[in-house]
Amino acid sequence: MTETDVPAAIETMAKQARAASYRLSQLSTAEKNAILLAMAAEVRASTPEIMASNILDLVAGEAKGLTKAMLDRLRLDEKRIEAIAAGIDQVATLPDPTGQVIDQWTRPNGMRLEQVRVPIGTIGIIYESRPNVTSDAAVLCFKTGNATILRGGSEAIHSNRAIAAALQKGGESAGLPEHAIQLIPFTDRASVTALCQMDKWLDLIIPRGGKGLIEAVVSQARMPVIKHYDGIVHTYVDAAADLDMAVSLAVDAKTQKPGVCNATETLLVHTAVAETFLPLAAAAFREKGVELRGCERTRAIIDAVPATEEDWSTEYLDLILSVKVVDSLQDAVEHINTYSSHHTECIVTADQAAAETFLAACDSACVFHNVSTRLADGEEFGFGAEIGISTDKLHARGPMGLRELTSYQYRVRGEGQMKAGN
Amino acid sequence: MTETDVPAAIETMAKQARAASYRLSQLSTAEKNAILLAMAAEVRASTPEIMASNILDLVAGEAKGLTKAMLDRLRLDEKRIEAIAAGIDQVATLPDPTGQVIDQWTRPNGMRLEQVRVPIGTIGIIYESRPNVTSDAAVLCFKTGNATILRGGSEAIHSNRAIAAALQKGGESAGLPEHAIQLIPFTDRASVTALCQMDKWLDLIIPRGGKGLIEAVVSQARMPVIKHYDGIVHTYVDAAADLDMAVSLAVDAKTQKPGVCNATETLLVHTAVAETFLPLAAAAFREKGVELRGCERTRAIIDAVPATEEDWSTEYLDLILSVKVVDSLQDAVEHINTYSSHHTECIVTADQAAAETFLAACDSACVFHNVSTRLADGEEFGFGAEIGISTDKLHARGPMGLRELTSYQYRVRGEGQMKAGN
Repeated sequence: MTETDVPAAIETMAKQARAASYRLSQLSTAEKNAILLAMAAEVRASTPEIMASNILDLVAGEAKGLTKAMLDRLRLDEKRIEAIAAGIDQVATLPDPTGQVIDQWTRPNGMRLEQVRVPIGTIGIIYESRPNVTSDAAVLCFKTGNATILRGGSEAIHSNRAIAAALQKGGESAGLPEHAIQLIPFTDRASVTALCQMDKWLDLIIPRGGKGLIEAVVSQARMPVIKHYDGIVHTYVDAAADLDMAVSLAVDAKTQKPGVCNATETLLVHTAVAETFLPLAAAAFREKGVELRGCERTRAIIDAVPATEEDWSTEYLDLILSVKVVDSLQDAVEHINTYSSHHTECIVTADQAAAETFLAACDSACVFHNVSTRLADGEEFGFGAEIGISTDKLHARGPMGLRELTSYQYRVRGEGQMKAGN
Repeated sequence: MTETDVPAAIETMAKQARAASYRLSQLSTAEKNAILLAMAAEVRASTPEIMASNILDLVAGEAKGLTKAMLDRLRLDEKRIEAIAAGIDQVATLPDPTGQVIDQWTRPNGMRLEQVRVPIGTIGIIYESRPNVTSDAAVLCFKTGNATILRGGSEAIHSNRAIAAALQKGGESAGLPEHAIQLIPFTDRASVTALCQMDKWLDLIIPRGGKGLIEAVVSQARMPVIKHYDGIVHTYVDAAADLDMAVSLAVDAKTQKPGVCNATETLLVHTAVAETFLPLAAAAFREKGVELRGCERTRAIIDAVPATEEDWSTEYLDLILSVKVVDSLQDAVEHINTYSSHHTECIVTADQAAAETFLAACDSACVFHNVSTRLADGEEFGFGAEIGISTDKLHARGPMGLRELTSYQYRVRGEGQMKAGN
């Protein structure tokens, strides 16, 4: 495919997606669930083909010098393919938000208004690396009646193709409209640029990946984008904190799985408890192998690497924690509103008034009182499934489930109501 | 102001807006309403200054050769200034959506979740011409706890400055945080470009104006944009329509105020009633001075200018109507989904099943059964006030009231819940 062909090919796919979206929006929930089960069955039946395709990616990845961790993320075995299929089965069991009447009322002139949840329409998913996203994203969008155009990374292209083929084949056997799920077959940057120009046909782009990818989409996209930026997440130990609870929550928030976006990166400690709390916390973190990077006041109490200005806005995704002593709840909130990525923040305190002040003042998607920041995700919230955690404020904020993959429409019924003489 | 100074000046304003937004979000509804009343009072008290500033704009506009219609839109007299003030008073009476608990539930581990409506934060409004938008947009954003940066058009710059000064002076006398409402003092395109790059400080841009302005914002903005594009609005007369009602609704939809976005631009007529309906409609439209542009089949029944392909995607905003005969409800829906700007569509029919099919199949913000498309606006819907009508599908679709100027936040309360061993 030459560079000049890419935009034309993408436009064709985008138009096809729009056409498919109109057929998708008319499917009943039962029809969609039957299609999902057929997709899952076909993924299971295609296990040998998916594994064979995955080996092509792994061989290419090794030749390219991908790290062991990256190769592991890429690898699909029978267990992981079964997990993909089981994930599809599970989406079939979730309630379908489309068609739900969000609100209804009657106006003095007698016209009856309904605000009804409808599919967004067409969604572009641009993602990197892990091939299971091909299925996860496509089926969540499908369950909510949206057509998808998937653009995965080059490392997983063979695996992505095999998974998409199974979804299409299984789905179409049960009535999936043609072009409802399309995978862009090429992986150069020109395809991202072209997709970002298709605002006539694509209603939304969701980029999932590193900062470079998200930056490319944000700067080029003409349509709405829901970003899943990083998690510079804070745990604040208040003057009135139960210090044992604070140690437990901080350790869980940092160490239970350090490489994810809801892991805490900065610990803020009220000066009134710093001398008691920090030695306890330092001992617990040392046991877990966590490197501490502290402000001057922290380092006067415990051993820590000196923290630089950069530390306060760094997402380590590792066993590293920055630590700062603050003079007040207000200072903690100001630090958070200055340096946070607006994902998740926690206050540990027994003081209800302090907790309420913190929750209302932090400009972040998830604000927690006495709960580990690791619990900020769609599954823990009970959403059944999530397509990611939005760090945007428009349309979807925080864990993004099926409901956030819908729009709404006003349906108004009357008997000849007019403006003139109204 | 040289070109290199503009981005720096805009960035300073944007940072100030963010800081103001944190103070705004902590104001109570009563405090906000008191500030609104003080703003209205100051607008009234500043009537002489606002009128004097407006004269500067009118003189400059005449020198520039603005049309009489444009000059009229620009003109502020005592009555129009009173209407601005009364509009502010009215916003004070509207319910405040912020703080509202949208949803709440408890998880098996005992953590209690609340989804709470909060301000979006900082909003840029880019608009043209009419100076009353300065007040309308600023006070709706303020009522919902948002800081605004207003960038009006050059034609109204003196009037806009005078109105913004009155809002600031009146508001600050009653506790409005500094920088809560800022007007960009210069009107070159560089200020639009600079604003579009401030995604770190600005959460949303709402452009209100012509296609050129919206296009410039869409192609440059890095933050979410809620567009108010044009209204290519359809009225479809079904085979089972009450033809008298159909004539009345079509005439109201086209002629009650032709220059607005919810006026019907295309009339679709089912072939089964075309021969009866079209002559009735043509007579009624002729009486109102409407030029009809018809498809071949229309022109076989009534006198009409031949419609070209371009007519189907033209927003006339004038006493012109394109007319097309279709073979089925399905063809009407396909025409609409192909050519509509996804604003508002109406079906006129006595057939309930046909109506429901139409409402569910049209991919537009407002879908009406036996209601004039002119009733598609926030006031008619009962929203009390609207900042515009969104033709986007994300976050806000259709008439956009106070609720659509908010985001939400998950507030989660627990007693030490963790991920480990959860």
